[in-house]
Amino acid sequence: MQIDPERLYQELARLGEIGAYTDDRTGLRGVNRLALTEADGAGRRHVVQSMLDLGLGVRIDKIGNVYARQEGREPGLAPVMIGSHVDSVPTAGRFDGCLGVLGGLEVLRTMAEAGHRPRRPIVVAFFTDEEGCRFGTDMLGSAVATGRLSLEQATGLLDAEGNRMGEELQRIGFEGEHPVELDPPYAYLEVHIEQGPVLRAHGVDLGIVTGVQGISWQELTILGRSAHAGTTPMELRRDAGLAAARINLFLHELTARIPGARATMGAIRPEPGLVNIVPGRVVCTVDLRNPDEALLAQAEAELAAFLVQVETLDGVQIEARQTARTPPVAFDPAIQARIEAAAKGLQLSTERIISGAGHDAQELARLCPTGMIFVPGEHEGISHNPRELSTMTQCGDGVQVLLRVVTELAEA
Amino acid sequence: MQIDPERLYQELARLGEIGAYTDDRTGLRGVNRLALTEADGAGRRHVVQSMLDLGLGVRIDKIGNVYARQEGREPGLAPVMIGSHVDSVPTAGRFDGCLGVLGGLEVLRTMAEAGHRPRRPIVVAFFTDEEGCRFGTDMLGSAVATGRLSLEQATGLLDAEGNRMGEELQRIGFEGEHPVELDPPYAYLEVHIEQGPVLRAHGVDLGIVTGVQGISWQELTILGRSAHAGTTPMELRRDAGLAAARINLFLHELTARIPGARATMGAIRPEPGLVNIVPGRVVCTVDLRNPDEALLAQAEAELAAFLVQVETLDGVQIEARQTARTPPVAFDPAIQARIEAAAKGLQLSTERIISGAGHDAQELARLCPTGMIFVPGEHEGISHNPRELSTMTQCGDGVQVLLRVVTELAEA
Repeated sequence: MQIDPERLYQELARLGEIGAYTDDRTGLRGVNRLALTEADGAGRRHVVQSMLDLGLGVRIDKIGNVYARQEGREPGLAPVMIGSHVDSVPTAGRFDGCLGVLGGLEVLRTMAEAGHRPRRPIVVAFFTDEEGCRFGTDMLGSAVATGRLSLEQATGLLDAEGNRMGEELQRIGFEGEHPVELDPPYAYLEVHIEQGPVLRAHGVDLGIVTGVQGISWQELTILGRSAHAGTTPMELRRDAGLAAARINLFLHELTARIPGARATMGAIRPEPGLVNIVPGRVVCTVDLRNPDEALLAQAEAELAAFLVQVETLDGVQIEARQTARTPPVAFDPAIQARIEAAAKGLQLSTERIISGAGHDAQELARLCPTGMIFVPGEHEGISHNPRELSTMTQCGDGVQVLLRVVTELAEA
Repeated sequence: MQIDPERLYQELARLGEIGAYTDDRTGLRGVNRLALTEADGAGRRHVVQSMLDLGLGVRIDKIGNVYARQEGREPGLAPVMIGSHVDSVPTAGRFDGCLGVLGGLEVLRTMAEAGHRPRRPIVVAFFTDEEGCRFGTDMLGSAVATGRLSLEQATGLLDAEGNRMGEELQRIGFEGEHPVELDPPYAYLEVHIEQGPVLRAHGVDLGIVTGVQGISWQELTILGRSAHAGTTPMELRRDAGLAAARINLFLHELTARIPGARATMGAIRPEPGLVNIVPGRVVCTVDLRNPDEALLAQAEAELAAFLVQVETLDGVQIEARQTARTPPVAFDPAIQARIEAAAKGLQLSTERIISGAGHDAQELARLCPTGMIFVPGEHEGISHNPRELSTMTQCGDGVQVLLRVVTELAEA
């Protein structure tokens, strides 16, 4: 069986017109289907219609997750589930999330055209508010379906204007009747754009995702002493900006020593921030990531020890506040092996890759063997941006491998 | 002859009430006599009245500089000039500038009380807009009087609201009739608060100022590539924030190698400045100072060479723009020796010190032998702040040494 890359790409373009806008500065066409807005509702209705057109049974749960089911030859068996999301950040492209959902429908469409009826049921799902931009918690729908968050916690969340998540869900007509608890699927698969530069830089066709990195965010407040840049000798300074610079360089040294570590100081705000004043106070952020929990904890511990050294070295006081912390998730090795074999059979090159971003798959991994296929991105893998682009071939390759793996798993 | 420290301190307090305000946050009493505002006009009139009360001849020039003359026994001789300024930054204390002017008047008052008539005339001057906060150019009046700026350049300057300097000068009634060109005095002396922590930290009574540092300001624009902190491997990053951190640390290493060097990165503005985005662009500032022109130029050259290294190391592009550059000024060694001897005679401890801030004395140094006496400051020498404080003893010691040196020079 062969999926149709052109048809898949057209479906991506059609969905990408819902919530589309033209960026004033660049003239590029972007997408804004922020969760539970009218545009998200329109995108959802469009995808549900495609599901119904394929003759699938559609079920919507109380958090708005949508499940479309192709019955198998043995209806009692746990299904193979394919999924992702169709909500977007406010300045999105058309690939993030949508590729996984429309790719799943393309798999079912291809099977239907071939008259192929798998042993196990196949479910294509899209989960509510994966992006988390509006209500502050990402992977919201899949977290509720897999028990990490309660329905009450999720529907009680407020957006910046004070709108309750549950009411917004009702407003767009996607508060379903089915209970949110998801029966464990036999396996879960998600095709997604990489959202990074690695696969494209390495000239690799597809990525086999080994897991999702653990994330540790800290906000550091460094208190020194503001002083006149002309009149204050170097040895009498307590330069909070210098302390931040030391920490930034230390983070980068750390990543050279700790396998798999990534570290970023994204925000640095010196006060008063004037050319001729030694900064008396700096607030800066630290983003640490690692696919291995022990190594992530090691990076946190080494940083904490270094902050004490900096306090002495620069005569500053540093307060560290943890602002986010999620443990790493490892995907199923057997499914990784199946993805690799399927790609090999199609003469597509692959590379094992860790996901730096969060995905619904990491929530599903609590319920069942889970795998992800990454598709390379052009423009250095830029994402959450109208320049986000994966080619028809790149998208088609990912979904063709998905078809093979799903077909196998659905017979197991 | 002995000056009266209590009277001097009372005069500082009286002038400090003109333009005074109470800081909302701290409850401290501050001073705002921004140049050529009504408050500056009121402060000027108060000082002119004190001059007239002392029987001095007052002359105002076309840029608003005010000169009060005590005739000498030999009227044809070049005068000894004592001066500073009475304008302030918007959030000032009562000592910056005022100590030099009111100290000069205290010297003349002491001489008059003692019936002492010096050989040379003595002139006490205050110069227009030393601070430069309003029209963007500091030492404005003394720069015009000594020929660095023309009267037309100065009066044509605009403030943020578009007001012309010359019109504001007229409005407060201080556009005088005398030509701005100043006949070279025999010598110029200025007592000023240190505006830094050194003398107080060293437990020294007075500072003998050796000169004013040269200043080099640069604004660096570092162009990297913004990237996702989770998905972008360290080796594929072009982190503009990391480049800024390297430069900051390099600047501090530089000051350890180059004698007399001071360096500060006061502003650092990463874009987009978010916890999970590698900064794609950073604008930061560099403030380099040195009392030696060759060493200042060496620091500039070493920095420029390092920026090229950083471009390669971090894959960034750096554009450096010079935003200010003034050469160092050296004060007269013979006057320094006189100050030292006078302090010694009064059993006051001294230390040679370079001025980190700009002063009218550096303009006058083009015309005649010039010297400055620094008075220590409490609260780590904080200045341009309502907490600015030098004690009655500190101020009195500085002006007593001034009296001795002026008395000597006026007989020479």
